[in-house]
Amino acid sequence: MSKWVYHFEEGSQAMRDLLGGKGAGLAEMSSAGLPVPPGFTITTSACREYYANNKHFPDNMWEQSLAALSDVEEKTGKTFGAPTNPLLLSVRSGAAVSMPGMMDTVLNLGLNQETVKGLAELTHDERFAWDAYRRFVEMFGEIVLGTPREKLLRGASQIYGASSNGSHAHHDDVETIKLIVQRYQDIIQGETRQIVPEDPYEQLRMAIAAVFDSWMNRRSIDYRRINNIDDSIGTAVSVQTMVFGNAGDDSGTGVAFTRNPSTGQPVIFGEYLTNAQGEDVVAGIRTPLPITYMAESLPDTYRQLIQIADRLETHYHDMQDIEFTIERGKLWMLQTRTGKRSGRAAVRVAVDMVREGVITKDEALKRVTPNHLEQVLHPVVDPNADAKVLTKGLPASPGAASGKVVFTADDAVKWAERGEPVILVRTETSPDDFHGMVAAEAIVTSRGGVTSHAAVVARGMGKCCVVGCHEIEIDYPSQLFMVGDTPVSAGDWVTVDGNEGQVLLGNIPTIEPILDEYFDTVMRWATEVKRLGVRANADNGPDAQVARDFGASGIGLCRTEHMFFEDERIDHMRDMIMAPNPIARAEALARLEPFQVQDFMDLFRVMDGYPVTIRLLDPPLHEFLPSHEETMLAITDRKLQLRDASTLAQIDELMREINDLTETLEQIERLQEKNPMLGHRGCRLGIVYPEVTEMQVRAIFTAAVRCHQQGIQVIPEVMIPLVAWVTEYRAQEEIVRRVASEVFEEYQIELDYTVGTMIELPRAALTANEIAEQAEFFSFGTNDLTQTTLGLSRDDSARFLAGFVANGIMPDDPFRSIDATGVGELVRFGTDRGRAARPDLKVGICGEHGGDPKSVLFFHNAGLDYVSCSPYRIPIAVLAAAHATIAENESHQAIVPA
Amino acid sequence: MSKWVYHFEEGSQAMRDLLGGKGAGLAEMSSAGLPVPPGFTITTSACREYYANNKHFPDNMWEQSLAALSDVEEKTGKTFGAPTNPLLLSVRSGAAVSMPGMMDTVLNLGLNQETVKGLAELTHDERFAWDAYRRFVEMFGEIVLGTPREKLLRGASQIYGASSNGSHAHHDDVETIKLIVQRYQDIIQGETRQIVPEDPYEQLRMAIAAVFDSWMNRRSIDYRRINNIDDSIGTAVSVQTMVFGNAGDDSGTGVAFTRNPSTGQPVIFGEYLTNAQGEDVVAGIRTPLPITYMAESLPDTYRQLIQIADRLETHYHDMQDIEFTIERGKLWMLQTRTGKRSGRAAVRVAVDMVREGVITKDEALKRVTPNHLEQVLHPVVDPNADAKVLTKGLPASPGAASGKVVFTADDAVKWAERGEPVILVRTETSPDDFHGMVAAEAIVTSRGGVTSHAAVVARGMGKCCVVGCHEIEIDYPSQLFMVGDTPVSAGDWVTVDGNEGQVLLGNIPTIEPILDEYFDTVMRWATEVKRLGVRANADNGPDAQVARDFGASGIGLCRTEHMFFEDERIDHMRDMIMAPNPIARAEALARLEPFQVQDFMDLFRVMDGYPVTIRLLDPPLHEFLPSHEETMLAITDRKLQLRDASTLAQIDELMREINDLTETLEQIERLQEKNPMLGHRGCRLGIVYPEVTEMQVRAIFTAAVRCHQQGIQVIPEVMIPLVAWVTEYRAQEEIVRRVASEVFEEYQIELDYTVGTMIELPRAALTANEIAEQAEFFSFGTNDLTQTTLGLSRDDSARFLAGFVANGIMPDDPFRSIDATGVGELVRFGTDRGRAARPDLKVGICGEHGGDPKSVLFFHNAGLDYVSCSPYRIPIAVLAAAHATIAENESHQAIVPA
Repeated sequence: MSKWVYHFEEGSQAMRDLLGGKGAGLAEMSSAGLPVPPGFTITTSACREYYANNKHFPDNMWEQSLAALSDVEEKTGKTFGAPTNPLLLSVRSGAAVSMPGMMDTVLNLGLNQETVKGLAELTHDERFAWDAYRRFVEMFGEIVLGTPREKLLRGASQIYGASSNGSHAHHDDVETIKLIVQRYQDIIQGETRQIVPEDPYEQLRMAIAAVFDSWMNRRSIDYRRINNIDDSIGTAVSVQTMVFGNAGDDSGTGVAFTRNPSTGQPVIFGEYLTNAQGEDVVAGIRTPLPITYMAESLPDTYRQLIQIADRLETHYHDMQDIEFTIERGKLWMLQTRTGKRSGRAAVRVAVDMVREGVITKDEALKRVTPNHLEQVLHPVVDPNADAKVLTKGLPASPGAASGKVVFTADDAVKWAERGEPVILVRTETSPDDFHGMVAAEAIVTSRGGVTSHAAVVARGMGKCCVVGCHEIEIDYPSQLFMVGDTPVSAGDWVTVDGNEGQVLLGNIPTIEPILDEYFDTVMRWATEVKRLGVRANADNGPDAQVARDFGASGIGLCRTEHMFFEDERIDHMRDMIMAPNPIARAEALARLEPFQVQDFMDLFRVMDGYPVTIRLLDPPLHEFLPSHEETMLAITDRKLQLRDASTLAQIDELMREINDLTETLEQIERLQEKNPMLGHRGCRLGIVYPEVTEMQVRAIFTAAVRCHQQGIQVIPEVMIPLVAWVTEYRAQEEIVRRVASEVFEEYQIELDYTVGTMIELPRAALTANEIAEQAEFFSFGTNDLTQTTLGLSRDDSARFLAGFVANGIMPDDPFRSIDATGVGELVRFGTDRGRAARPDLKVGICGEHGGDPKSVLFFHNAGLDYVSCSPYRIPIAVLAAAHATIAENESHQAIVPA
Repeated sequence: MSKWVYHFEEGSQAMRDLLGGKGAGLAEMSSAGLPVPPGFTITTSACREYYANNKHFPDNMWEQSLAALSDVEEKTGKTFGAPTNPLLLSVRSGAAVSMPGMMDTVLNLGLNQETVKGLAELTHDERFAWDAYRRFVEMFGEIVLGTPREKLLRGASQIYGASSNGSHAHHDDVETIKLIVQRYQDIIQGETRQIVPEDPYEQLRMAIAAVFDSWMNRRSIDYRRINNIDDSIGTAVSVQTMVFGNAGDDSGTGVAFTRNPSTGQPVIFGEYLTNAQGEDVVAGIRTPLPITYMAESLPDTYRQLIQIADRLETHYHDMQDIEFTIERGKLWMLQTRTGKRSGRAAVRVAVDMVREGVITKDEALKRVTPNHLEQVLHPVVDPNADAKVLTKGLPASPGAASGKVVFTADDAVKWAERGEPVILVRTETSPDDFHGMVAAEAIVTSRGGVTSHAAVVARGMGKCCVVGCHEIEIDYPSQLFMVGDTPVSAGDWVTVDGNEGQVLLGNIPTIEPILDEYFDTVMRWATEVKRLGVRANADNGPDAQVARDFGASGIGLCRTEHMFFEDERIDHMRDMIMAPNPIARAEALARLEPFQVQDFMDLFRVMDGYPVTIRLLDPPLHEFLPSHEETMLAITDRKLQLRDASTLAQIDELMREINDLTETLEQIERLQEKNPMLGHRGCRLGIVYPEVTEMQVRAIFTAAVRCHQQGIQVIPEVMIPLVAWVTEYRAQEEIVRRVASEVFEEYQIELDYTVGTMIELPRAALTANEIAEQAEFFSFGTNDLTQTTLGLSRDDSARFLAGFVANGIMPDDPFRSIDATGVGELVRFGTDRGRAARPDLKVGICGEHGGDPKSVLFFHNAGLDYVSCSPYRIPIAVLAAAHATIAENESHQAIVPA
């Protein structure tokens, strides 16, 4: 017989997959002797069976639950459904991975017309008992029976009177509450043709089913898709004795992090509300007090809480996110779980915990996710900018972002889809707003605290968020909000400062963050651990300097063509392209050469002692010419001017211009391509115009010997782009070696250098063995390799790609994370075949994927030597590379007997 | 010790690789007891060793040659270099594969100031002896010592006087000839600072080296590249006793085919010249007589020749191309080899020989090359065309072609490179003209016969050629030719009729050939033998009919988009694309649907009982819109008109047009793509606009059921294009199956059909196992697969691709013959992985490569089920498929023990 139900004492943290995060936490805490209200957990496998079984409980699950329940009755001395001393239960969801606020919870279960009286007698507080009953009916009606929440609230406020604005909980008299309960029942019956059952066991049965069902509600599914969580794992259900934080002023409820989740400071951080249930804190309906205030108002409980927090950290070796309730002075732990944290906090907590001796360096590195680092690297508002602070709130999630104000999640999605950055402004957010939060650049709420829904979700997404901006008064129908006398309408620009907790008027500039010693420490550790080299894609001295500052171990890709677009260079470039013959072409090239020499010298200087991979000219020549249309319009324009020209000089000038433009137009037409991505570019240019290759190679080696003369250690690697046939490579390599020799001869200096190639076409990967017989290194150009392998233009596909990812056609944007099955297969192929022909072949990758953590893991596993990415992505790549090494070491340890 | 030298009697036809074609033929003939002048052959391995050895004879080769020579002396009773009864030798090249006229030959070797007197004494003909000596000096001077031929001829003509125009051979007196010999020696010494050596052994040594060297002359290398012959195989050298066709009027020389090489008629066909050496025939300097004239002039010899021809055909099981000499009435066989033939002849000879019981059907099929069939399928001049015959000549190579007249090979190449079809007109052609013949559409000569250089080479290339147009008088400096009073200048259009041997004025229309029963027989046999299915790419009824007539076993690719460009359809298509919403789009699609239904019904009707693969819409939508530039110019134009508009109605009309055009322009801009090849096309369209797929599928199945109702057997195969992810395929397949069911439901008819996909992206090939789990068939779209695998746009690469092929960067144009190493690897991959997932997966290919013989062989070997090609390529594909099967069977037999 399957075991579907576990007492809290039977489980442990290790059973997270079976009991869910919450269930495992309660079990672990119970086992550790912490004060946890008794209860039991129905397993995730019961949930899976429920779905497999067409939404029927698995055999025996109900019976096992009843047995566990009677055990709880015994422990508490209370009886479920009894008119005197009734046992009340909470029924909560909890999957193996945290999905905060996504699924449903029912509290105060077990109350009915009879037991409410028993509770009143027991507590000597009829108002409390009826308020608990009201809460139960509201929740059950909404969550289990599906009554729209607004309908219920509107019904209640009609009784309270419109002015109370919903914040009505504890100061109303019993009779009003009884009326509300009755009104709720009427509304529920009217909306659902069902009533909240009197039978507590029926309540329990329905609540368990409702929690199972909430696994498949819209927002849960959305959340899992965004976070790549498997739909099939299911949720567990924890059934637990209710304790009441709303049983008077010596009661309360709170949530806390054992350290500051924004900054990582090792000080307990959280909020509490007296005389309240947990929902009041999470939903942000009442703004709670900082937890440190407890030291004064409930000093004993506060001390106890601090001790428990310490025990939990020691027990779990990580910062915890806890929920607790104080019932008439007694502290109950309701939940503990690994605390979500900002990037900054993640970095600091990891470093601190190593220093405290709690975790190892590897463990610390694993605790810092690439997403955390991205947050750390997030921009801040430029302090020198002329910014007007509109209002202040709580800094819920760091970063800074500007955008246009929108007031609904749907608008956020709609505006974002047409490319407009948006800031979602809400009174408070609910799980139904999730899609809008995804779409928004930042989130602002007028209510709620740093553990409100908006704050938790935004931090999880690494998205800038400011909550509790009390001054903001939103007028949804008018699509505006007021701060005092200042109106801000939908579409107006605001800038959100998640670090300072401010909202600024207008589109304010932001700047890169200053990185602290915790960051430096993590980067140093990661660098020590990782096997993959991390280089930078950089085309000039300043970019190379950023890369060095971030610890790049070389330049993996210098795109020489970027050097041609600047200033007067573009004119020489165009002269080169318009040249009627090789001699004129050579002259134009000669004028370009000094610039190239200077550029390469700058790079070599910054990269003293590190390799610099220089790619020869890659894009088709027409990219350097003006567009066909532009030129044609210019000709039309001159012709129109010619009509009105009055002097001969004017006419002569215009005629000359028309002639020049016509010549350019003809060359543009000759060079025009239908698919430039697949056109006359890369090494194909150098084969047809060897003089271009010659000039570039001469510049590279002239720069190299000059730097060498200045005492700089230069390690040039010449890279030939877009090779499909080894014969192409050979033709270009011959030029490189010949010209290098000429330069060495001229300067009487001989330098080591290597020649290699981009592997960016499927054919190159497929014939890598042939190519590796010639080439000394490979660098996978995964941008182009993705474009060709998938037949997908990066420029043109943006229009439909997001939709394809959203519809599950592809798991990820293949230009962000490498398509491991398709493109990745060619990377493995190319690497293996290349190494088969040349065992010491150096293999790297220099596409955008070099800075994507998932892809970095892939490249590590494929056995590459290095990744190269844009300078600002280097920390991410270094960390991802360290993670890959740690994962590999762990998997090795796992298979080596102890 | 290596054996470098073989007596003719030691060798056989089987030793072709070692002795070359000529040497093996002489050996085989000698062994068969035919009258062959004694001699020996130096092997091709000696030639290879010569090149490996830095152009030195291999050890012992010379000694073995001298030994063989003394054997020949013994057989002939003559002595090499002896003043009396001197042995004279020919030294000829001969590789394992025929390279007509490409390499060098030296005749009359052994003559010097002494032996010439001995020859005169022996023959009692001083003029003959000195004429032989003159020929020897001329050849040796040109070929061995490298004196320019023109210099020698100019020197000779100065002595003859200008009027004789070079045709001076036998009627001059001895003293003149002696003067010419002296003049030759002077010119040779002046040009080369060498003289023709007196020592016959030195002559022999130098001549052998010269023949070896000629293996690597420019035209040989060019020829081999064009014909894909390996440079490393080398040539053999045959040294043979001279016999003299120019020893009087009872002497002569000739070349003949044992059957007519143009038509295949089983009648000896050739030419002879009395009192001449072989060079006079081949070079076309004197126009020879048809061989049948020999029946009257030399009846005994003619009878003997006919008998020998019969014996040779029986011996070799093939039509022979023979060279013979009659020396004072005695017939000597100088060479036999497989006769080159026109396509028409190849087909007829093959069929006839099967009927004569000489060869098997397999053998017959192997004798017909795809190139032969191409010739058979060549166009002829439209007999109803209003054509003016300019002049007549000999029909040297069949076909018909029009082009602009050019007079030099270089011009032919230059004009052809800029896309102009050219006709190369020459007095006669020489091997130096080879590149021009390759470039020309057709070749015309004013001199020479059907075995002249021009004729042989043109037939080999399957190129239309007319020779011996005596009326043509070419004026090279003036760049024109005259026929009577009619001048034709360079650049004028002419049409060459290679079937009738005529040159027509102007650009005359041509029509497809009528195919005879020999062709039908070969096609029937090939169809019986082949394993690969051959289908057609056809988009409409008439094309499908051509395909059926050629024996296509179905349609492998119907490109539905071609149907949208016609007539009013394009308007509906544009309405569809411009539709502001799905409803308007559905309306436009509804207007297109009846056209599609009609088109598909036409196809199904023609293909009654055969499968029809219909590909869903593939190209990006902007292909159906006018160009951006065009639209922009139209707007500018209307705006200019607006300036001059005078009535309100005009203004209204123009404003309306400007509005419409602007709307179109905006849509064009929205749809514009940088790389449409890699853009929003194929199944990606159907995913974003499912209503397009729905319309097409509804049309396919509506057509299918209607045809079914008319008693037609329809086998529809719906093909989803440009799949990269199996998820894309699934999304489209769902629509196909759903809509098919709807149509079947509506008509209450259920038909069998299959759904499959194009494999035209590397990712699809790499993940073929995933895709094959869903798809019932694959069709490799090798056009796009080539573009993506090589990163090479077919449209854009034409500019440089020819150069890349010429420079050996790639072995072939990859859009003509499949790139077996790269693209082919993916085809093998896709097929193997696909079949692993679905063993009965049907796999075809529908790119242009389906009609390319080399590629067809590749697809056969890769295990594909069928190829699909354009209707007119079907015979080629069928034959190539038969060849592939035969080759496979033979290789199986080769490894199965007898």
